[in-house]
Amino acid sequence: MIKIVIIGSGNVAHHMFEAFRNSPIVEVIQVLARNKKLKNSDFFEDKMIFNFSDLAEADLYLIAVSDNAISNIASQLPFENRLVVHTSGAADLAILNSKNRKGVFYPLQTFSKNRKIDYDQIPICLEYEQENDFVLLTKVAHSISNQVFKINYEQRKKLHLSAVFVNNFTNHLYQIGEEICLENNIPFEILNALILETAKKAVRLSPKAAQTGPAVRNDTQTIEAHLSILNNENQKSIYQSITQSIQNNVKKL
Amino acid sequence: MIKIVIIGSGNVAHHMFEAFRNSPIVEVIQVLARNKKLKNSDFFEDKMIFNFSDLAEADLYLIAVSDNAISNIASQLPFENRLVVHTSGAADLAILNSKNRKGVFYPLQTFSKNRKIDYDQIPICLEYEQENDFVLLTKVAHSISNQVFKINYEQRKKLHLSAVFVNNFTNHLYQIGEEICLENNIPFEILNALILETAKKAVRLSPKAAQTGPAVRNDTQTIEAHLSILNNENQKSIYQSITQSIQNNVKKL
Repeated sequence: MIKIVIIGSGNVAHHMFEAFRNSPIVEVIQVLARNKKLKNSDFFEDKMIFNFSDLAEADLYLIAVSDNAISNIASQLPFENRLVVHTSGAADLAILNSKNRKGVFYPLQTFSKNRKIDYDQIPICLEYEQENDFVLLTKVAHSISNQVFKINYEQRKKLHLSAVFVNNFTNHLYQIGEEICLENNIPFEILNALILETAKKAVRLSPKAAQTGPAVRNDTQTIEAHLSILNNENQKSIYQSITQSIQNNVKKL
Repeated sequence: MIKIVIIGSGNVAHHMFEAFRNSPIVEVIQVLARNKKLKNSDFFEDKMIFNFSDLAEADLYLIAVSDNAISNIASQLPFENRLVVHTSGAADLAILNSKNRKGVFYPLQTFSKNRKIDYDQIPICLEYEQENDFVLLTKVAHSISNQVFKINYEQRKKLHLSAVFVNNFTNHLYQIGEEICLENNIPFEILNALILETAKKAVRLSPKAAQTGPAVRNDTQTIEAHLSILNNENQKSIYQSITQSIQNNVKKL
Protein backbone atom coordinates (compact mmCIF):
# COMPACT_ATOMS: atom_id res chain seq x y z
CA MET A 1 0.00 0.00 0.00
CA ILE A 2 1.08 3.59 -0.68
CA LYS A 3 1.09 5.40 2.66
CA ILE A 4 -0.31 8.92 2.77
CA VAL A 5 -0.49 11.53 5.53
CA ILE A 6 -3.10 14.26 5.13
CA ILE A 7 -2.25 17.59 6.75
CA GLY A 8 -5.37 19.64 7.42
CA SER A 9 -8.90 18.81 8.54
CA GLY A 10 -11.13 21.09 6.45
CA ASN A 11 -13.37 20.31 3.48
CA VAL A 12 -10.63 19.22 1.10
CA ALA A 13 -8.93 17.06 3.74
CA HIS A 14 -12.28 15.53 4.62
CA HIS A 15 -13.11 14.66 1.00
CA MET A 16 -9.62 13.39 0.18
CA PHE A 17 -9.80 11.10 3.22
CA GLU A 18 -13.19 9.87 2.03
CA ALA A 19 -11.93 9.35 -1.54
CA PHE A 20 -8.85 7.38 -0.46
CA ARG A 21 -11.03 5.13 1.68
CA ASN A 22 -12.10 3.50 -1.60
CA SER A 23 -8.64 3.36 -3.13
CA PRO A 24 -7.30 -0.19 -3.37
CA ILE A 25 -3.66 0.95 -3.29
CA VAL A 26 -3.62 3.88 -0.87
CA GLU A 27 -3.81 3.93 2.89
CA VAL A 28 -4.19 7.19 4.81
CA ILE A 29 -2.13 6.50 7.90
CA GLN A 30 -2.48 9.88 9.66
CA VAL A 31 -4.43 13.15 9.55
CA LEU A 32 -2.65 16.08 11.16
CA ALA A 33 -5.06 18.72 12.51
CA ARG A 34 -4.38 22.01 14.22
CA ASN A 35 -7.75 22.14 15.86
CA LYS A 36 -7.87 19.89 18.93
CA LYS A 37 -11.63 20.35 19.10
CA LEU A 38 -11.75 17.83 16.27
CA LYS A 39 -10.43 15.23 18.71
CA ASN A 40 -13.97 14.19 19.47
CA SER A 41 -14.96 14.03 15.83
CA ASP A 42 -14.94 10.43 14.71
CA PHE A 43 -14.81 11.22 11.02
CA PHE A 44 -11.07 10.63 10.74
CA GLU A 45 -11.36 7.58 12.99
CA ASP A 46 -8.16 6.77 14.88
CA LYS A 47 -5.93 8.51 12.32
CA MET A 48 -5.85 11.95 13.93
CA ILE A 49 -2.69 13.51 15.33
CA PHE A 50 -2.11 17.07 16.54
CA ASN A 51 1.66 17.51 16.67
CA PHE A 52 4.24 17.71 13.91
CA SER A 53 6.50 15.56 16.08
CA ASP A 54 4.02 12.69 15.82
CA LEU A 55 4.23 12.53 12.02
CA ALA A 56 5.03 9.03 10.78
CA GLU A 57 7.05 8.08 7.72
CA ALA A 58 4.91 8.04 4.57
CA ASP A 59 5.24 7.96 0.76
CA LEU A 60 3.28 11.18 0.34
CA TYR A 61 2.30 14.16 2.53
CA LEU A 62 -0.79 15.94 1.23
CA ILE A 63 -1.17 19.50 2.58
CA ALA A 64 -4.86 20.43 2.40
CA VAL A 65 -5.08 23.79 4.14
CA SER A 66 -5.88 27.36 3.07
CA ASP A 67 -3.40 28.90 0.60
CA ASN A 68 -1.81 31.32 3.04
CA ALA A 69 -1.04 28.55 5.57
CA ILE A 70 0.72 26.18 3.13
CA SER A 71 4.18 27.74 3.27
CA ASN A 72 4.30 27.87 7.04
CA ILE A 73 3.21 24.27 7.42
CA ALA A 74 5.66 23.02 4.79
CA SER A 75 8.55 24.67 6.65
CA GLN A 76 7.53 23.07 9.95
CA LEU A 77 7.71 19.52 8.64
CA PRO A 78 10.37 17.73 10.74
CA PHE A 79 11.90 15.68 7.91
CA GLU A 80 13.68 16.04 4.57
CA ASN A 81 13.65 14.62 1.05
CA ARG A 82 10.16 13.20 1.26
CA LEU A 83 7.35 13.94 -1.26
CA VAL A 84 5.17 16.85 -0.06
CA VAL A 85 2.34 18.21 -2.20
CA HIS A 86 -0.31 20.88 -1.71
CA THR A 87 -3.89 20.74 -3.02
CA SER A 88 -4.36 24.37 -4.04
CA GLY A 89 -5.56 25.67 -7.40
CA ALA A 90 -3.86 29.01 -7.00
CA ALA A 91 -0.64 28.49 -5.02
CA ASP A 92 2.75 28.00 -6.65
CA LEU A 93 4.59 24.74 -6.09
CA ALA A 94 7.55 26.91 -5.09
CA ILE A 95 5.92 27.98 -1.81
CA LEU A 96 6.58 24.48 -0.48
CA ASN A 97 9.82 24.19 1.46
CA SER A 98 12.82 23.01 -0.58
CA LYS A 99 14.01 20.58 2.05
CA ASN A 100 11.41 18.15 0.64
CA ARG A 101 10.44 17.03 -2.91
CA LYS A 102 7.57 19.24 -4.09
CA GLY A 103 4.40 18.58 -6.00
CA VAL A 104 0.78 19.64 -6.48
CA PHE A 105 -2.28 17.40 -6.23
CA TYR A 106 -5.21 19.70 -7.05
CA PRO A 107 -8.71 18.17 -7.05
CA LEU A 108 -10.88 20.47 -9.19
CA GLN A 109 -14.26 20.43 -7.45
CA THR A 110 -16.41 22.43 -5.05
CA PHE A 111 -16.39 20.68 -1.71
CA SER A 112 -18.95 21.00 1.09
CA LYS A 113 -18.74 18.83 4.14
CA ASN A 114 -22.26 17.51 3.91
CA ARG A 115 -22.50 16.64 0.24
CA LYS A 116 -21.54 13.23 -1.12
CA ILE A 117 -19.56 13.38 -4.33
CA ASP A 118 -18.64 10.92 -7.09
CA TYR A 119 -14.90 11.06 -6.55
CA ASP A 120 -14.11 9.22 -9.75
CA GLN A 121 -15.54 12.19 -11.69
CA ILE A 122 -13.26 14.75 -10.03
CA PRO A 123 -10.34 15.85 -12.22
CA ILE A 124 -7.00 15.68 -10.40
CA CYS A 125 -4.37 18.13 -11.67
CA LEU A 126 -0.78 17.11 -11.00
CA GLU A 127 2.46 19.05 -10.94
CA TYR A 128 5.83 17.67 -9.83
CA GLU A 129 9.56 18.23 -10.02
CA GLN A 130 10.93 14.72 -10.42
CA GLU A 131 9.83 12.05 -12.89
CA ASN A 132 9.81 9.41 -10.11
CA ASP A 133 7.35 11.43 -8.09
CA PHE A 134 5.14 11.77 -11.15
CA VAL A 135 4.82 7.99 -11.31
CA LEU A 136 3.67 7.82 -7.70
CA LEU A 137 1.33 10.84 -7.94
CA THR A 138 -0.27 9.45 -11.10
CA LYS A 139 -0.84 6.08 -9.44
CA VAL A 140 -2.43 7.71 -6.41
CA ALA A 141 -4.61 10.02 -8.52
CA HIS A 142 -5.78 7.25 -10.86
CA SER A 143 -6.70 5.11 -7.89
CA ILE A 144 -9.49 7.57 -7.01
CA SER A 145 -10.29 9.40 -10.28
CA ASN A 146 -10.85 8.65 -13.96
CA GLN A 147 -9.55 12.06 -14.91
CA VAL A 148 -5.93 12.84 -14.20
CA PHE A 149 -4.15 15.77 -15.87
CA LYS A 150 -0.61 17.08 -15.91
CA ILE A 151 -1.10 20.82 -15.47
CA ASN A 152 1.73 23.31 -14.97
CA TYR A 153 1.53 26.36 -12.72
CA GLU A 154 0.64 28.83 -15.48
CA GLN A 155 -2.17 26.55 -16.63
CA ARG A 156 -3.35 25.87 -13.10
CA LYS A 157 -3.67 29.59 -12.37
CA LYS A 158 -5.82 29.99 -15.47
CA LEU A 159 -7.81 26.89 -14.65
CA HIS A 160 -8.49 28.23 -11.17
CA LEU A 161 -9.66 31.49 -12.72
CA SER A 162 -11.98 29.54 -15.07
CA ALA A 163 -13.31 27.68 -12.05
CA VAL A 164 -14.11 30.99 -10.35
CA PHE A 165 -16.23 31.93 -13.38
CA VAL A 166 -18.08 28.63 -13.77
CA ASN A 167 -18.48 27.92 -10.05
CA ASN A 168 -18.29 30.96 -7.74
CA PHE A 169 -19.72 33.47 -10.21
CA THR A 170 -22.35 31.10 -11.61
CA ASN A 171 -23.48 30.39 -8.07
CA HIS A 172 -23.84 34.12 -7.45
CA LEU A 173 -26.07 34.40 -10.54
CA TYR A 174 -28.22 31.62 -9.07
CA GLN A 175 -28.42 33.66 -5.90
CA ILE A 176 -29.57 36.73 -7.82
CA GLY A 177 -32.21 34.55 -9.50
CA GLU A 178 -33.32 33.40 -6.06
CA GLU A 179 -33.46 36.95 -4.72
CA ILE A 180 -35.58 38.21 -7.62
CA CYS A 181 -37.95 35.25 -7.17
CA LEU A 182 -38.34 35.69 -3.42
CA GLU A 183 -38.95 39.44 -3.74
CA ASN A 184 -41.85 38.60 -6.03
CA ASN A 185 -43.35 35.70 -4.09
CA ILE A 186 -42.20 33.15 -6.63
CA PRO A 187 -40.77 29.88 -5.24
CA PHE A 188 -37.08 29.55 -6.24
CA GLU A 189 -37.70 25.84 -6.99
CA ILE A 190 -39.40 26.96 -10.19
CA LEU A 191 -35.88 27.60 -11.58
CA ASN A 192 -34.43 24.20 -10.62
CA ALA A 193 -35.07 22.44 -13.92
CA LEU A 194 -33.68 25.38 -15.87
CA ILE A 195 -30.51 25.57 -13.77
CA LEU A 196 -29.80 21.84 -14.17
CA GLU A 197 -30.59 21.76 -17.89
CA THR A 198 -28.40 24.83 -18.54
CA ALA A 199 -25.44 23.05 -16.94
CA LYS A 200 -26.08 19.73 -18.72
CA LYS A 201 -26.49 21.46 -22.06
CA ALA A 202 -23.20 23.35 -21.71
CA VAL A 203 -21.20 20.20 -21.02
CA ARG A 204 -22.81 18.27 -23.89
CA LEU A 205 -22.98 21.01 -26.50
CA SER A 206 -20.48 23.86 -26.40
CA PRO A 207 -21.56 26.87 -24.28
CA LYS A 208 -21.08 29.05 -27.35
CA ALA A 209 -23.57 26.95 -29.32
CA ALA A 210 -25.96 26.87 -26.36
CA GLN A 211 -26.15 30.65 -25.89
CA THR A 212 -29.70 32.04 -26.10
CA GLY A 213 -31.49 35.10 -24.73
CA PRO A 214 -32.06 38.78 -25.45
CA ALA A 215 -28.35 39.73 -25.49
CA VAL A 216 -27.23 37.27 -28.16
CA ARG A 217 -30.19 38.07 -30.42
CA ASN A 218 -29.72 41.80 -29.75
CA ASP A 219 -33.29 42.19 -28.49
CA THR A 220 -32.79 45.75 -27.20
CA GLN A 221 -36.44 46.12 -26.21
CA THR A 222 -36.24 43.21 -23.72
CA ILE A 223 -32.83 44.35 -22.47
CA GLU A 224 -34.21 47.85 -21.77
CA ALA A 225 -37.26 46.36 -20.05
CA HIS A 226 -35.06 44.19 -17.84
CA LEU A 227 -32.79 47.10 -16.88
CA SER A 228 -35.82 49.20 -16.01
CA ILE A 229 -37.18 46.62 -13.52
CA LEU A 230 -33.79 45.93 -11.89
CA ASN A 231 -33.58 48.17 -8.85
CA ASN A 232 -30.45 46.66 -7.31
CA GLU A 233 -27.38 48.52 -8.62
CA ASN A 234 -25.09 45.48 -8.31
CA GLN A 235 -27.52 43.33 -10.28
CA LYS A 236 -27.85 46.06 -12.91
CA SER A 237 -24.09 46.34 -13.27
CA ILE A 238 -23.77 42.55 -13.70
CA TYR A 239 -26.63 42.56 -16.21
CA GLN A 240 -24.86 45.25 -18.23
CA SER A 241 -21.37 43.77 -18.15
CA ILE A 242 -22.52 40.28 -19.19
CA THR A 243 -24.87 41.59 -21.88
CA GLN A 244 -22.03 43.72 -23.29
CA SER A 245 -19.71 40.72 -23.30
CA ILE A 246 -22.24 38.46 -25.05
CA GLN A 247 -22.85 41.11 -27.69
CA ASN A 248 -19.13 41.68 -28.29
CA ASN A 249 -18.76 37.92 -28.75
CA VAL A 250 -21.46 37.93 -31.40
CA LYS A 251 -19.64 40.71 -33.27
CA LYS A 252 -16.46 38.64 -33.22
CA LEU A 253 -18.14 35.73 -35.06
CA MET B 1 -59.67 14.59 -25.82
CA ILE B 2 -58.82 18.28 -25.49
CA LYS B 3 -58.00 19.56 -28.99
CA ILE B 4 -55.05 21.89 -29.37
CA VAL B 5 -53.68 23.79 -32.34
CA ILE B 6 -50.05 24.92 -32.12
CA ILE B 7 -49.20 28.08 -34.05
CA GLY B 8 -45.48 28.25 -34.81
CA SER B 9 -42.85 25.70 -35.77
CA GLY B 10 -39.74 26.76 -33.84
CA ASN B 11 -38.09 25.23 -30.77
CA VAL B 12 -40.96 25.85 -28.35
CA ALA B 13 -43.59 24.59 -30.84
CA HIS B 14 -41.43 21.55 -31.49
CA HIS B 15 -41.06 20.69 -27.80
CA MET B 16 -44.71 21.39 -26.94
CA PHE B 17 -45.73 19.05 -29.78
CA GLU B 18 -43.38 16.43 -28.38
CA ALA B 19 -44.66 16.91 -24.82
CA PHE B 20 -48.33 16.63 -25.79
CA ARG B 21 -47.59 13.42 -27.67
CA ASN B 22 -47.40 11.76 -24.23
CA SER B 23 -50.45 13.50 -22.78
CA PRO B 24 -53.36 11.11 -22.26
CA ILE B 25 -55.96 13.88 -22.53
CA VAL B 26 -54.59 16.24 -25.19
CA GLU B 27 -54.49 15.84 -28.94
CA VAL B 28 -52.58 18.30 -31.13
CA ILE B 29 -54.78 18.44 -34.21
CA GLN B 30 -52.85 21.04 -36.27
CA VAL B 31 -49.54 22.90 -36.38
CA LEU B 32 -49.67 26.19 -38.30
CA ALA B 33 -46.30 27.16 -39.80
CA ARG B 34 -45.32 30.20 -41.81
CA ASN B 35 -42.37 28.52 -43.37
CA LYS B 36 -43.42 26.24 -46.22
CA LYS B 37 -39.93 24.81 -46.32
CA LEU B 38 -41.01 22.82 -43.31
CA LYS B 39 -43.48 20.99 -45.53
CA ASN B 40 -40.93 18.28 -46.10
CA SER B 41 -40.06 17.96 -42.46
CA ASP B 42 -41.84 14.95 -41.05
CA PHE B 43 -41.50 16.00 -37.43
CA PHE B 44 -45.04 17.36 -37.18
CA GLU B 45 -46.33 14.38 -39.16
CA ASP B 46 -49.56 15.08 -41.05
CA LYS B 47 -50.59 17.90 -38.71
CA MET B 48 -48.99 20.79 -40.59
CA ILE B 49 -51.01 23.56 -42.22
CA PHE B 50 -49.76 26.83 -43.74
CA ASN B 51 -52.83 29.07 -44.01
CA PHE B 52 -54.93 30.74 -41.33
CA SER B 53 -58.01 29.82 -43.37
CA ASP B 54 -57.26 26.12 -42.80
CA LEU B 55 -57.44 26.42 -38.99
CA ALA B 56 -59.83 23.90 -37.47
CA GLU B 57 -62.00 24.35 -34.40
CA ALA B 58 -60.07 23.53 -31.19
CA ASP B 59 -60.31 23.99 -27.41
CA LEU B 60 -57.01 25.83 -27.24
CA TYR B 61 -54.72 27.71 -29.65
CA LEU B 62 -51.14 27.86 -28.46
CA ILE B 63 -49.09 30.63 -30.08
CA ALA B 64 -45.42 29.63 -29.89
CA VAL B 65 -43.60 32.28 -31.92
CA SER B 66 -41.11 35.08 -31.15
CA ASP B 67 -42.46 37.83 -28.90
CA ASN B 68 -42.69 40.49 -31.59
CA ALA B 69 -44.79 38.25 -33.88
CA ILE B 70 -47.46 37.29 -31.29
CA SER B 71 -49.68 40.33 -31.64
CA ASN B 72 -49.81 40.18 -35.42
CA ILE B 73 -50.65 36.48 -35.44
CA ALA B 74 -53.34 36.86 -32.78
CA SER B 75 -55.08 39.54 -34.83
CA GLN B 76 -55.06 37.38 -37.97
CA LEU B 77 -56.94 34.48 -36.36
CA PRO B 78 -60.19 34.08 -38.35
CA PHE B 79 -62.47 33.31 -35.38
CA GLU B 80 -63.75 34.80 -32.13
CA ASN B 81 -64.37 33.86 -28.51
CA ARG B 82 -62.00 30.90 -28.49
CA LEU B 83 -59.14 30.38 -26.00
CA VAL B 84 -55.85 31.72 -27.38
CA VAL B 85 -52.66 31.67 -25.31
CA HIS B 86 -49.06 32.64 -25.95
CA THR B 87 -45.98 30.86 -24.56
CA SER B 88 -43.76 33.86 -23.85
CA GLY B 89 -41.99 34.68 -20.59
CA ALA B 90 -41.84 38.39 -21.34
CA ALA B 91 -44.94 39.35 -23.34
CA ASP B 92 -48.08 40.76 -21.75
CA LEU B 93 -51.30 38.78 -22.06
CA ALA B 94 -52.84 42.04 -23.33
CA ILE B 95 -50.96 41.87 -26.65
CA LEU B 96 -53.29 39.03 -27.68
CA ASN B 97 -56.31 40.22 -29.67
CA SER B 98 -59.44 40.86 -27.60
CA LYS B 99 -61.75 39.10 -30.04
CA ASN B 100 -60.64 35.83 -28.35
CA ARG B 101 -60.27 34.73 -24.71
CA LYS B 102 -56.67 35.32 -23.65
CA GLY B 103 -54.19 33.35 -21.60
CA VAL B 104 -50.51 32.52 -21.12
CA PHE B 105 -48.96 29.05 -21.11
CA TYR B 106 -45.25 29.66 -20.41
CA PRO B 107 -42.96 26.62 -20.20
CA LEU B 108 -39.91 27.73 -18.21
CA GLN B 109 -37.03 25.88 -19.86
CA THR B 110 -34.23 26.33 -22.39
CA PHE B 111 -35.19 24.51 -25.55
CA SER B 112 -32.87 23.28 -28.29
CA LYS B 113 -34.20 21.24 -31.15
CA ASN B 114 -31.79 18.37 -30.72
CA ARG B 115 -31.93 17.84 -26.98
CA LYS B 116 -34.39 15.47 -25.33
CA ILE B 117 -35.97 16.87 -22.21
CA ASP B 118 -37.95 15.45 -19.26
CA TYR B 119 -41.13 17.37 -19.91
CA ASP B 120 -42.65 16.47 -16.57
CA GLN B 121 -39.89 18.49 -14.87
CA ILE B 122 -40.65 21.68 -16.81
CA PRO B 123 -42.59 24.26 -14.80
CA ILE B 124 -45.61 25.60 -16.67
CA CYS B 125 -46.65 29.14 -15.70
CA LEU B 126 -50.30 29.96 -16.34
CA GLU B 127 -52.17 33.24 -16.67
CA TYR B 128 -55.82 33.61 -17.74
CA GLU B 129 -58.76 35.98 -17.69
CA GLN B 130 -61.67 33.64 -17.01
CA GLU B 131 -61.98 31.02 -14.30
CA ASN B 132 -63.32 28.46 -16.83
CA ASP B 133 -60.24 28.82 -18.95
CA PHE B 134 -58.07 28.29 -15.88
CA VAL B 135 -59.67 24.88 -15.38
CA LEU B 136 -58.84 23.84 -18.94
CA LEU B 137 -55.31 25.31 -18.91
CA THR B 138 -54.52 23.60 -15.60
CA LYS B 139 -55.72 20.25 -16.95
CA VAL B 140 -53.60 20.61 -20.07
CA ALA B 141 -50.53 21.73 -18.11
CA HIS B 142 -50.83 18.96 -15.51
CA SER B 143 -51.15 16.38 -18.26
CA ILE B 144 -47.52 17.07 -19.27
CA SER B 145 -45.87 18.54 -16.15
CA ASN B 146 -45.66 17.95 -12.41
CA GLN B 147 -45.07 21.63 -11.79
CA VAL B 148 -47.86 24.03 -12.66
CA PHE B 149 -47.91 27.59 -11.32
CA LYS B 150 -50.35 30.48 -11.47
CA ILE B 151 -48.08 33.43 -12.23
CA ASN B 152 -49.32 36.94 -13.02
CA TYR B 153 -47.69 39.28 -15.53
CA GLU B 154 -45.65 41.22 -12.98
CA GLN B 155 -44.30 37.96 -11.56
CA ARG B 156 -43.70 36.47 -15.00
CA LYS B 157 -41.59 39.46 -16.05
CA LYS B 158 -39.44 39.03 -12.94
CA LEU B 159 -39.27 35.28 -13.43
CA HIS B 160 -38.11 35.79 -17.00
CA LEU B 161 -35.43 38.18 -15.72
CA SER B 162 -34.32 35.56 -13.15
CA ALA B 163 -34.16 33.02 -15.95
CA VAL B 164 -31.87 35.33 -17.93
CA PHE B 165 -29.48 35.38 -14.96
CA VAL B 166 -29.49 31.64 -14.22
CA ASN B 167 -29.61 30.48 -17.85
CA ASN B 168 -28.32 33.01 -20.43
CA PHE B 169 -25.77 34.68 -18.16
CA THR B 170 -24.62 31.47 -16.50
CA ASN B 171 -24.06 29.97 -19.92
CA HIS B 172 -21.94 32.96 -20.86
CA LEU B 173 -19.78 32.38 -17.76
CA TYR B 174 -19.33 28.78 -18.93
CA GLN B 175 -18.22 30.17 -22.27
CA ILE B 176 -15.66 32.42 -20.61
CA GLY B 177 -14.41 29.38 -18.67
CA GLU B 178 -14.10 27.54 -21.97
CA GLU B 179 -12.23 30.41 -23.62
CA ILE B 180 -9.71 30.72 -20.80
CA CYS B 181 -9.12 26.95 -20.92
CA LEU B 182 -8.67 26.79 -24.68
CA GLU B 183 -6.27 29.77 -24.69
CA ASN B 184 -4.11 27.81 -22.25
CA ASN B 185 -4.28 24.39 -23.89
CA ILE B 186 -6.49 22.97 -21.17
CA PRO B 187 -9.38 20.74 -22.28
CA PHE B 188 -12.72 22.37 -21.35
CA GLU B 189 -13.99 18.92 -20.25
CA ILE B 190 -11.88 19.35 -17.13
CA LEU B 191 -14.61 21.75 -15.88
CA ASN B 192 -17.58 19.45 -16.57
CA ALA B 193 -17.81 17.89 -13.11
CA LEU B 194 -17.51 21.30 -11.45
CA ILE B 195 -20.22 22.85 -13.66
CA LEU B 196 -22.65 20.01 -12.95
CA GLU B 197 -21.94 19.88 -9.20
CA THR B 198 -22.31 23.67 -8.88
CA ALA B 199 -25.79 23.46 -10.38
CA LYS B 200 -26.84 20.43 -8.30
CA LYS B 201 -25.55 22.02 -5.12
CA ALA B 202 -27.49 25.26 -5.72
CA VAL B 203 -30.80 23.47 -6.17
CA ARG B 204 -30.27 21.25 -3.09
CA LEU B 205 -28.71 23.77 -0.74
CA SER B 206 -29.48 27.46 -1.16
CA PRO B 207 -27.10 29.34 -3.52
CA LYS B 208 -26.36 31.74 -0.68
CA ALA B 209 -25.20 28.87 1.54
CA ALA B 210 -23.23 27.35 -1.34
CA GLN B 211 -21.21 30.49 -2.14
CA THR B 212 -17.44 29.95 -1.97
CA GLY B 213 -14.40 31.58 -3.57
CA PRO B 214 -12.07 34.55 -3.17
CA ALA B 215 -14.81 37.21 -3.31
CA VAL B 216 -16.93 35.87 -0.46
CA ARG B 217 -13.91 35.30 1.79
CA ASN B 218 -12.50 38.71 0.78
CA ASP B 219 -9.23 37.17 -0.42
CA THR B 220 -7.93 40.37 -2.04
CA GLN B 221 -4.61 38.80 -2.98
CA THR B 222 -6.27 36.17 -5.19
CA ILE B 223 -8.70 38.73 -6.63
CA GLU B 224 -5.79 40.99 -7.61
CA ALA B 225 -3.91 38.05 -9.09
CA HIS B 226 -6.96 37.06 -11.16
CA LEU B 227 -7.51 40.59 -12.43
CA SER B 228 -3.85 40.85 -13.42
CA ILE B 229 -4.03 37.73 -15.63
CA LEU B 230 -7.35 38.64 -17.28
CA ASN B 231 -6.48 40.41 -20.52
CA ASN B 232 -9.99 40.53 -21.99
CA GLU B 233 -11.71 43.76 -20.93
CA ASN B 234 -15.21 42.24 -21.00
CA GLN B 235 -14.12 39.37 -18.80
CA LYS B 236 -12.43 41.79 -16.43
CA SER B 237 -15.53 43.91 -16.17
CA ILE B 238 -17.68 40.84 -15.41
CA TYR B 239 -15.13 39.67 -12.83
CA GLN B 240 -15.28 43.05 -11.11
CA SER B 241 -19.05 43.50 -11.14
CA ILE B 242 -19.75 40.00 -9.76
CA THR B 243 -16.99 40.22 -7.15
CA GLN B 244 -18.38 43.57 -6.01
CA SER B 245 -21.88 42.14 -5.78
CA ILE B 246 -20.75 39.09 -3.78
CA GLN B 247 -18.85 41.33 -1.37
CA ASN B 248 -21.79 43.71 -0.91
CA ASN B 249 -23.95 40.69 -0.13
CA VAL B 250 -21.53 39.60 2.57
CA LYS B 251 -21.71 43.06 4.14
CA LYS B 252 -25.50 42.84 4.21
CA LEU B 253 -25.43 39.66 6.32
